[in-house]
Amino acid sequence: MKKVDLSFQSCKAEYNESNVVLFSVPMDTTTSYRPGTRFAGNAIRVESIGIEWYSPYKDMNLRDYKTVDIGDLELPMGLVEDSLEIVNDTVKQILKDNKKPMMIGGEHLVTLPVVQALVQKYPDLHIIHLDAHTDLRDEFLGRKLSHATVLRRCHDILGDGRIYQFGIRSGDKHEFDLAKSGHVFMRKFDLEGLDKIVEKLKDKPVYITIDLDVLDPSVFPGTGTPEPGGITFKELLSAMKTFEGLNNVVGADLVELAPMLDTSNVSTIVAAKALREMILLLHK
Amino acid sequence: MKKVDLSFQSCKAEYNESNVVLFSVPMDTTTSYRPGTRFAGNAIRVESIGIEWYSPYKDMNLRDYKTVDIGDLELPMGLVEDSLEIVNDTVKQILKDNKKPMMIGGEHLVTLPVVQALVQKYPDLHIIHLDAHTDLRDEFLGRKLSHATVLRRCHDILGDGRIYQFGIRSGDKHEFDLAKSGHVFMRKFDLEGLDKIVEKLKDKPVYITIDLDVLDPSVFPGTGTPEPGGITFKELLSAMKTFEGLNNVVGADLVELAPMLDTSNVSTIVAAKALREMILLLHK
Amino acid sequence: MKKVDLSFQSCKAEYNESNVVLFSVPMDTTTSYRPGTRFAGNAIRVESIGIEWYSPYKDMNLRDYKTVDIGDLELPMGLVEDSLEIVNDTVKQILKDNKKPMMIGGEHLVTLPVVQALVQKYPDLHIIHLDAHTDLRDEFLGRKLSHATVLRRCHDILGDGRIYQFGIRSGDKHEFDLAKSGHVFMRKFDLEGLDKIVEKLKDKPVYITIDLDVLDPSVFPGTGTPEPGGITFKELLSAMKTFEGLNNVVGADLVELAPMLDTSNVSTIVAAKALREMILLLHK
Amino acid sequence: MKKVDLSFQSCKAEYNESNVVLFSVPMDTTTSYRPGTRFAGNAIRVESIGIEWYSPYKDMNLRDYKTVDIGDLELPMGLVEDSLEIVNDTVKQILKDNKKPMMIGGEHLVTLPVVQALVQKYPDLHIIHLDAHTDLRDEFLGRKLSHATVLRRCHDILGDGRIYQFGIRSGDKHEFDLAKSGHVFMRKFDLEGLDKIVEKLKDKPVYITIDLDVLDPSVFPGTGTPEPGGITFKELLSAMKTFEGLNNVVGADLVELAPMLDTSNVSTIVAAKALREMILLLHK
Amino acid sequence: MKKVDLSFQSCKAEYNESNVVLFSVPMDTTTSYRPGTRFAGNAIRVESIGIEWYSPYKDMNLRDYKTVDIGDLELPMGLVEDSLEIVNDTVKQILKDNKKPMMIGGEHLVTLPVVQALVQKYPDLHIIHLDAHTDLRDEFLGRKLSHATVLRRCHDILGDGRIYQFGIRSGDKHEFDLAKSGHVFMRKFDLEGLDKIVEKLKDKPVYITIDLDVLDPSVFPGTGTPEPGGITFKELLSAMKTFEGLNNVVGADLVELAPMLDTSNVSTIVAAKALREMILLLHK
Amino acid sequence: MKKVDLSFQSCKAEYNESNVVLFSVPMDTTTSYRPGTRFAGNAIRVESIGIEWYSPYKDMNLRDYKTVDIGDLELPMGLVEDSLEIVNDTVKQILKDNKKPMMIGGEHLVTLPVVQALVQKYPDLHIIHLDAHTDLRDEFLGRKLSHATVLRRCHDILGDGRIYQFGIRSGDKHEFDLAKSGHVFMRKFDLEGLDKIVEKLKDKPVYITIDLDVLDPSVFPGTGTPEPGGITFKELLSAMKTFEGLNNVVGADLVELAPMLDTSNVSTIVAAKALREMILLLHK
Repeated sequence: MKKVDLSFQSCKAEYNESNVVLFSVPMDTTTSYRPGTRFAGNAIRVESIGIEWYSPYKDMNLRDYKTVDIGDLELPMGLVEDSLEIVNDTVKQILKDNKKPMMIGGEHLVTLPVVQALVQKYPDLHIIHLDAHTDLRDEFLGRKLSHATVLRRCHDILGDGRIYQFGIRSGDKHEFDLAKSGHVFMRKFDLEGLDKIVEKLKDKPVYITIDLDVLDPSVFPGTGTPEPGGITFKELLSAMKTFEGLNNVVGADLVELAPMLDTSNVSTIVAAKALREMILLLHK
Repeated sequence: MKKVDLSFQSCKAEYNESNVVLFSVPMDTTTSYRPGTRFAGNAIRVESIGIEWYSPYKDMNLRDYKTVDIGDLELPMGLVEDSLEIVNDTVKQILKDNKKPMMIGGEHLVTLPVVQALVQKYPDLHIIHLDAHTDLRDEFLGRKLSHATVLRRCHDILGDGRIYQFGIRSGDKHEFDLAKSGHVFMRKFDLEGLDKIVEKLKDKPVYITIDLDVLDPSVFPGTGTPEPGGITFKELLSAMKTFEGLNNVVGADLVELAPMLDTSNVSTIVAAKALREMILLLHK
Repeated sequence: MKKVDLSFQSCKAEYNESNVVLFSVPMDTTTSYRPGTRFAGNAIRVESIGIEWYSPYKDMNLRDYKTVDIGDLELPMGLVEDSLEIVNDTVKQILKDNKKPMMIGGEHLVTLPVVQALVQKYPDLHIIHLDAHTDLRDEFLGRKLSHATVLRRCHDILGDGRIYQFGIRSGDKHEFDLAKSGHVFMRKFDLEGLDKIVEKLKDKPVYITIDLDVLDPSVFPGTGTPEPGGITFKELLSAMKTFEGLNNVVGADLVELAPMLDTSNVSTIVAAKALREMILLLHK
Repeated sequence: MKKVDLSFQSCKAEYNESNVVLFSVPMDTTTSYRPGTRFAGNAIRVESIGIEWYSPYKDMNLRDYKTVDIGDLELPMGLVEDSLEIVNDTVKQILKDNKKPMMIGGEHLVTLPVVQALVQKYPDLHIIHLDAHTDLRDEFLGRKLSHATVLRRCHDILGDGRIYQFGIRSGDKHEFDLAKSGHVFMRKFDLEGLDKIVEKLKDKPVYITIDLDVLDPSVFPGTGTPEPGGITFKELLSAMKTFEGLNNVVGADLVELAPMLDTSNVSTIVAAKALREMILLLHK
Repeated sequence: MKKVDLSFQSCKAEYNESNVVLFSVPMDTTTSYRPGTRFAGNAIRVESIGIEWYSPYKDMNLRDYKTVDIGDLELPMGLVEDSLEIVNDTVKQILKDNKKPMMIGGEHLVTLPVVQALVQKYPDLHIIHLDAHTDLRDEFLGRKLSHATVLRRCHDILGDGRIYQFGIRSGDKHEFDLAKSGHVFMRKFDLEGLDKIVEKLKDKPVYITIDLDVLDPSVFPGTGTPEPGGITFKELLSAMKTFEGLNNVVGADLVELAPMLDTSNVSTIVAAKALREMILLLHK
Repeated sequence: MKKVDLSFQSCKAEYNESNVVLFSVPMDTTTSYRPGTRFAGNAIRVESIGIEWYSPYKDMNLRDYKTVDIGDLELPMGLVEDSLEIVNDTVKQILKDNKKPMMIGGEHLVTLPVVQALVQKYPDLHIIHLDAHTDLRDEFLGRKLSHATVLRRCHDILGDGRIYQFGIRSGDKHEFDLAKSGHVFMRKFDLEGLDKIVEKLKDKPVYITIDLDVLDPSVFPGTGTPEPGGITFKELLSAMKTFEGLNNVVGADLVELAPMLDTSNVSTIVAAKALREMILLLHK
């Protein structure tokens, strides 16, 4: 008799045979408002039993591709630097084995160690970033490493012209100014122009980071800092369709689901369905 | 002093004087994911106290029409065939008495016995089907009779060219292929083209079956298998306006509300308001 | 050491130095369906810790303006006339001190005493009213003073041509007839034409009353009588942008948040963010 | 075909043949904290489908007795005096027809018009009162008629030595003093000594009023003013057993269930089971 | 890198090396009231991350024993007989391999195939049964196989004097009569006398089946048919201590957790902690 | 007009005139399971509007004593050492001003800086500790400073014989061994013997720290790590009565309420009522 296997929907391959490696990062230490994203990974796994393995949007089937789910990384709870190092080591190993990383957050700060690992392999790395919040602060509540500074830290690494933000509708004035002065590309409030950016980056190595609070809270209430005025799920699906124009997506993440706040359970389903589409994108 | 009467909003006529007969079917035996639609009927009844009897969309008033509410049918819990037979008998009686059936599910399988009864009276019956799911499997988890096969069973009865699906966004690949090869009409993801179909069917006998999960989960979280990427309530209202172009609507149902999952209670209100509009449509 | 200060986000000025006075009215006595709006004020205050003080929509910052939050008014619970008088006295004092009132309801009836106070100072007062419900009944459940009659009472004071309603989708037939016969302006179902009305009223003294149930229940489930088919938050933000065309907004309110019904807490966040935008509008 | 019948579990007799008349009073106008008891009656009706008609505690079966359920009384929402008069008229009619009243609240104030009606028929009326709160204030928030004054109003009618309170653990100091000076009998915190009081009153006409918040909030969270430190459900059942020592129970009520606050639905089940026991007691 | 392992807390052994085999049965087809126990197994697994592996009650540590968790059995949804056969086959294999079965329900009917398998190996099998409900009906809603008949079916197999029930407080009169006439031992309402029964059965092969609704709904709201008036968790722990007097516990189950109804998540934690104690008991 | 004042029930004195200083610590950084205690302070403040200022248990009235509420301390989110220092500084100032500190957590680690401040003034300090968990680990998840080590850190300061634990029912084996070998006094599972300890410590300076998860989860579900098998609220009240035998209570805290997990809101009410009793104890 076999041991219980609660891998994400149909992603039951072994590590060695897989092209995509799914993992989750149970960390929300720097979350400043409502915490709880640490529980996202397993919530999505259990909920994924209820979604189909076939995507009518992409006409692709999870069962036709090899994906391994290695579960929650084991982190020293509350020790931020040590936790980020473990994420970084994990991604380096995945890249070394010529697989693509697909990460479930956790808070948004977990994107940083992935980007640090990717840039070593892909020095010309670009980031497409969907989010309600700029995350461009230089420091937040006395911390350099924070969910609210994570894209600024990525900018420290990548420099100007490499980060493309969409859906942004919350932040401090100086963060918006950073975009105005051209350090990052920022589209406020919606996803307009994404197709042009995709066209522009089509042969570049691109990392896609999706903070699920880019969705309107009506669609995705289960997150720590819901920000009214966001996009619909159809708009997110449309963006994922647009991403198919990229020839070199080198990894991706979905962050900021907080299951404790998801009273109707629908946010977890939204995240699971979005994850199915993203895994299929990485296999394309 | 009179006994308590918890008929749906204003539908307090006696059976004999009524043109429309409202009933609910407390069955969710074949539900494969989250069950609980068995409780929909009474939840809608109690909640309907909070909605208006006047519809500004149709400029019609429930109080001006005769509708009887006969409540939940009494079913042998868990015995699928026996339960369907009771629904079938009930609808046959309603049709014999020259009234129109308006059914609240329950899971979607309850549509089958209604269609079986209707086709005897209206051999040229057509179905308009709003849903997130195709429900076109030939068999599901070892069952021929299932919420996931119900439209396939209807197709067995009606044959090609009689079923028109809208809003579909989930299913197995072979189900979508069934539509591609022309056995049923399927509009994926939205309701575009509904007006043309209504025009085409305007003098046909038409049964309308609405799986409320055609709505986006933001609008209607209280259902067993929410499927992100659905339509808005305004789009559903617009469809109901379009339905007025049909000259021979012979019955209708609203299925798949699961009150246990409706933490904010809003899904039940959505169902109640949709039901008001559907009853008025049947009286038109 | 200083006493606890739970003023709404950044609105921590003293009364004398303030231009805008924020207060809340914990009254829901005439609520006919699900009560609980009495708790809205403090729920918004506590939740406001989680929103930004900077608005990217208006490029304005709450910290740059002087606003005082005087909290819940102390009302004799359940005594309608006495409670309204206290609201009226409060607003008269605010006007006398040359400040603008920004009110959080409570049920919608609390708008009446504000209008009564304002019209003394601004005889040419006009009202822009966003709501799902007409609130134009002459009497409701035996009461002249009710959440369902409040705009009718305002009409008694202001007369024809002064009230402009948008988003209306529920009421009794005779209420809609009142608009048809031209006593009030009514735009059903959405906000179309708001820009024209704003242009028309740009130099008039205008009071803006927003019943938050004008929003679709997917966006704002936490209210006593959710009414499916409403506007999105983006549409509400757009209306607030349009309001900037008014040169003389003399006060405003946001009513009908019922925190007990807000299981996901998102409605309270929606109200808090809308309130930030309205306070900034009053400071413009 | 028969109209829907949602009478409380098995209580489906007609009025004329019944010995006990069940009704509910949807009023919570004077509730000072969290409102919503207006919805208790129908919530209990719908939930009662899930409980047994046989009581192993009393070895009696609801089906063996004739009880009619006349549903929610129709009240003019928010008009306290008018509402109480309707309750009073209803009970007078029930008494005239030689039946016993069994009332579901609503807030506790609804007990007053029942007592007013009963005392006319039974001048020697006594009251046994289970509650967390004394309800002995002379006035509350400017009102003589309030949930917080209802037992004081009963005392006005009945005088000293007629009211026996148990389980009391909240109130103002002067209310506790009223008991200390002997005007009413009060047992604080628990039900000790109930058997002695029952023995003493065994041949008197007794009305039993149970504010369900006498139960600990762990047992009964679904109420407006939960008061930690209450009794268990077993202790309540034991009290109901003790009540069998009374030879002349002339009526009873269960008040203060607030279904909106009953997130787990268990409080409604507690109320339904308690109601089954109370109806059986009245039939004894 | 290793695949995700979501075995119940510390029970991460391989099948071959284990003495106890944990499995869950996602079946609730015959549930007559609120369904959802099909989700119990994985809910307990994920929640078990939050409980300790050391039991201060037994001074034993899960880590010191070999237990395998084989997860949810794969069942043909809604086909009762086929599902029970799969459970039966699984348990037969476990017994053949000289291991002990520890089952998580699902509805209570899943106990039957375990008992059928056990009695083949242990003809002198006895059952200790903790429950709110008798489950002794001969037939329920037209079914011989039902959660409400399961102990009657066990009695068909084992005969008189083999079944010992505790905590019973709900059922039909004829079920209680079955106990009165001596066919089964029944202790109503509480666990008194359990120690004497344990003493009596100490050298017999005993199966322990615990319907978690034996607990009071205040302790365990997350179940389909909560029955007020139950035992506390301390009383359940005390029973588990008493069970240590049994020298031959041959298997056990915990049934009727319904996670969809567990709004506070505490019922799932209660089940997880009870499961830890039961696994340790089987290892004793 | 005065600014909003949301001090805890009746505790509206100014700092200088107060004998007791109430403050809350919004920190849950080291919480290993479900976070969210950072929100406890303001949740209790808002909820306290619904409780009485008079205590029938102590026959004392909050209004008769001077207490100031200084609100949430402002902490650098996620920086543990810095946050603890701020708590320590605050308490030192309170002690210097000859007032008593009453703290609301936050996670349990916040007790440490209070004890550090108190021991400087009261070298002979003793601690009475009510909790489900030992909190005696030397290190937890790589941290010396953790909610799970806090009493061990207190032991480092105070040494043997100074810490008295009650209600303990969860921890690792070596923690229980620490008590067995006499370093701390530990009463497992309940509060028996508390009166003897109080008698023994009656003239000592005593700090009382109450982790509210000492209560059974049925009473107090709203906490991060509910531990079934706890005490009732009546037992906690009884302990508070017993504490009156102490002549020198120098401060106290209530920790581990997590409002996000308190779906029924009852845990917040439990905490508010317990806080009222504790404040009165400090004034005694």
